[in-house]
Amino acid sequence: MKNTIKMAMVAAGALAVSAGVTLAQYESDREQIVDLLESYETALNASDTDAVLTLYAPDGVFMPQHSPSQIGAVAVRRAYDNVFTAITLDVEFQVEEVHQMSPEWAFARTNSVGFVTINASGDRAPEANQELFIFNKSADGEWKIARYAFSTINPPRQ
Amino acid sequence: MKNTIKMAMVAAGALAVSAGVTLAQYESDREQIVDLLESYETALNASDTDAVLTLYAPDGVFMPQHSPSQIGAVAVRRAYDNVFTAITLDVEFQVEEVHQMSPEWAFARTNSVGFVTINASGDRAPEANQELFIFNKSADGEWKIARYAFSTINPPRQ
Repeated sequence: MKNTIKMAMVAAGALAVSAGVTLAQYESDREQIVDLLESYETALNASDTDAVLTLYAPDGVFMPQHSPSQIGAVAVRRAYDNVFTAITLDVEFQVEEVHQMSPEWAFARTNSVGFVTINASGDRAPEANQELFIFNKSADGEWKIARYAFSTINPPRQ
Repeated sequence: MKNTIKMAMVAAGALAVSAGVTLAQYESDREQIVDLLESYETALNASDTDAVLTLYAPDGVFMPQHSPSQIGAVAVRRAYDNVFTAITLDVEFQVEEVHQMSPEWAFARTNSVGFVTINASGDRAPEANQELFIFNKSADGEWKIARYAFSTINPPRQ
């Protein structure tokens, strides 16, 4: 993830103008967002619902593949609990882009690759997904996941 | 789709303040975005790649399930051509929310339900997806799809 972060930082100058944010603030926001993505990766690989929930806005929406959209902290918590009961993830996120749209809104596009273990059977299989995150800065200045959708990039199982 | 649009319009006042956009501009932007979603639905059901492409920003990213992210107009066009060669869609979009994040950025979350026909076999099956769109207003004032991800909400096939 480190190399991608560095690449992303280079582009900060050009984007800062359009977002109406000072460059210093922009770089600080960007760093916080990349940190958030790293924390998300860690929480996911640890099957840690509590840690995941600290990264979401209270009214955040989680849009997991094979499930209706989960709206708000209670539903998001239940959804991650279900995921972590069913599977154990061992994945690495690659940050493809972080784009700040306003002082309070940003999005990131990532890819993740690794392995998924089906807890019931112990079967382990390769996993590869693409992710689209929308982040909102809370009143106390912390970036949180506002909306999050992902899908597999692998072909359908035959 | 109509009822959802009306509901969404009621919330415009509260959101306009945070986005730093006048209410009149906000409502106009919102209407254009909902129109865009309707045009997308129409283009999808008509398997019309050209029509889809008019709705995307030139550097837009399409993140279809079971495929890597498609970046930029050439890749987006090829991806939709592939989709429309493989399947024919008959789906209806329900707009769950439209949220303007700044004068130039907005997102929408939708659900779509209907049927998919596999062109090779003629088999027809129910289809249900969730979608996350990020829109960008172009220099000439037109809203375009900047990023778009979706995934099925149906359980995995056994």
